[in-house]
Amino acid sequence: METILIYISLLGSLTFAISGALKAINKKFDPFGILIIGFVTAVGGGTIRDILITDKTVFWLTETTHLYFIIGGVILAIIFRNKLNKFNKSLTIFDAVGLGLFTITGVQIGLENDLHYINCIILGTVTGSFGGVLRDVLVNETPVIFKKEIYATISIVGGAIYLILLKLEVQNPILQIVPIVLIIIARLVILKFKITLPQINYKKK
Amino acid sequence: METILIYISLLGSLTFAISGALKAINKKFDPFGILIIGFVTAVGGGTIRDILITDKTVFWLTETTHLYFIIGGVILAIIFRNKLNKFNKSLTIFDAVGLGLFTITGVQIGLENDLHYINCIILGTVTGSFGGVLRDVLVNETPVIFKKEIYATISIVGGAIYLILLKLEVQNPILQIVPIVLIIIARLVILKFKITLPQINYKKK
Amino acid sequence: METILIYISLLGSLTFAISGALKAINKKFDPFGILIIGFVTAVGGGTIRDILITDKTVFWLTETTHLYFIIGGVILAIIFRNKLNKFNKSLTIFDAVGLGLFTITGVQIGLENDLHYINCIILGTVTGSFGGVLRDVLVNETPVIFKKEIYATISIVGGAIYLILLKLEVQNPILQIVPIVLIIIARLVILKFKITLPQINYKKK
Repeated sequence: METILIYISLLGSLTFAISGALKAINKKFDPFGILIIGFVTAVGGGTIRDILITDKTVFWLTETTHLYFIIGGVILAIIFRNKLNKFNKSLTIFDAVGLGLFTITGVQIGLENDLHYINCIILGTVTGSFGGVLRDVLVNETPVIFKKEIYATISIVGGAIYLILLKLEVQNPILQIVPIVLIIIARLVILKFKITLPQINYKKK
Repeated sequence: METILIYISLLGSLTFAISGALKAINKKFDPFGILIIGFVTAVGGGTIRDILITDKTVFWLTETTHLYFIIGGVILAIIFRNKLNKFNKSLTIFDAVGLGLFTITGVQIGLENDLHYINCIILGTVTGSFGGVLRDVLVNETPVIFKKEIYATISIVGGAIYLILLKLEVQNPILQIVPIVLIIIARLVILKFKITLPQINYKKK
Repeated sequence: METILIYISLLGSLTFAISGALKAINKKFDPFGILIIGFVTAVGGGTIRDILITDKTVFWLTETTHLYFIIGGVILAIIFRNKLNKFNKSLTIFDAVGLGLFTITGVQIGLENDLHYINCIILGTVTGSFGGVLRDVLVNETPVIFKKEIYATISIVGGAIYLILLKLEVQNPILQIVPIVLIIIARLVILKFKITLPQINYKKK
C-alpha cells in the first residue's frame, strides 16, 4: 500500500510538472523558465507545507526521486507539446489524482505533528493547491484557483472527509482510499460540467 | 495587560481579514478565494516573521483562535459587503490598530530571539505590513504599500521608538502602549490628510 | 581567501541592492518601496535557501554587515540615479560577480548539509537567481530570468563545474575561483552578444 502511494505521488509530481511546463511554454518562457515553472508547480505546495512545520525538512531536499520525475515531466511536455492537447483528458485525470493524494498527504503530516483538525485541513489544502498558486504568481497571472475553478474547495472537503472517517475509526487502506477517490471524482465531475462556485457580487441598486 | 494585547491582536486579525476579503470581492473571486485572501492578509506578516526565525513555530499552526476570528471576519465581509463602505472609517481604525500591535509584536519577538536592533525593526515591519504585500501579490497587483501610502515607514519609525523607550528603561505598560498609540495616530493622520512620501524622479533635462 | 570572499559577497549584495533600487525608481515607488525592493533583491535568494534548509538560520538575521551594504547601495542608487546609466557596465560586472559568488556559496552550503549533488545545484541556482525573481514578482512583472536572459542556466552550469572539480579533488582556492570566474565571464559574454536560449514554440500547421 505504502509503495503504491509513493508511485501515485510521483505520478502526481510528473503531471503537475507537465501542466506547469505547458503553461510556461504558452507564456514563451525559455527552457530554463519552463523547468522552473514545472518544478515549482510540482513541489510548491509540499514545500510551503514543510516550511510552515518548523521541524520538517523540505521533502525534495533529502531525496531525488521526485526531482527525476519532475525533470522527466518537463522534458515530456517540451517534446510532446503539440500532441498534449489531445491527451488533455488524461492529463486532467493525473492532475486530479495529484490533488487527491497531495491533499491527504498534507492532512496526514498535520496529524503526525499533532496539529488541530482545522490546521490539518489547511495543510492539506496548501499541499494540494498552492503549487498552482505559485505557478500563477510566477507567470504573473491571478491564481486560477481563486476565480474560475472549484479546486481548493475540493481539498477542504476531502480533508474533512478523511478526518471524519478517522474519527469513525475507519481503518487503512479504506481510510486513505475513500477521500482520495472522492476528491478525484469531484474534480473530474466539476471539470466535465464546468461547475463554479457562485460569485459574491455587490448588490446593484 | 497581556490579555488585552491578545484581544487587540485578534481584533487586528479580524479587521485585516475583512480588508483582504473586501479586496477579493472587488476582484470577483469565488468564496474560497475570498477566504484565502482574507487569511493571507491576516496571518501573512506574522507567518513570514516566524519562518525567518528558524526555531519559531508558525503562530497559527499551534492554536486556532486566530483562525476563528479570520473566518468570522471573512463571513462578516461577505454578508455586509454592501454596507462596509459606510463603516470604512471604523475599518481603517481597526487596521491601524492591527498595524500598531503587529509591529510591536514583531519587534518584541526579535528581542526575545536576541536579534540586533535593526533586525528587530525589520521583523516588526514584516509582521505589520507583509500580510498586505502577500494579499496584493496574490491578486496580481503591485503592492500598495510601496507606492501610494505611507504604511511600512510608520512601522519602521514605531519600532525604533519602542527600542528607544526600551533603552531609556521605560517600563511596561507604557513601553508598549506609547509606540502602538503613536503608530495608530500616525496612520490615521496620514490617511486623513492623504500624506505621501516624496517620489524619487529622474532629473529631466 | 575567506576574507576576500566575504568582501566580494558584500559587494554582490551592494550591487544587487543597487539594481533592485533602480528598478523600483523606474516603477515610481516611494523611498520605502525602493529600500524594500533593493533589500529583497539582495537577500532574497539566500533567504529562500536558508528557509529551505530547516536547521539554518537566515543569514542576515544574525549579523548586520550585509544590511549596511544594502542600505548603502539603495542610498547610492537614489543619489546617483541619473548618472548610473553611465556606470551600467560596472554595475553589470558587479551583478555578474554577485551571481558567481552567490551561486558557489549556495552549492557549498548544500554540501555542508550533506545534500545530493542535484539539490546542491538547485540551492546554488536559488541563491544566485531568486533575489531577482522576488524583485520581479513584487514589482508585478514576469521574472526576467525566465524569458529574456540566460541567467539561471549559468548558475546551473557553474554549480555543476564546481562539483566536477570537487570530484577531481581540485583544492582551494582554485576549486572556488575557477567556477566563479567562469560564471562571471559567461554572464558578461552573454550580455555583450545578447545570446538567448532558444524558445520552445508550438509547431505551426
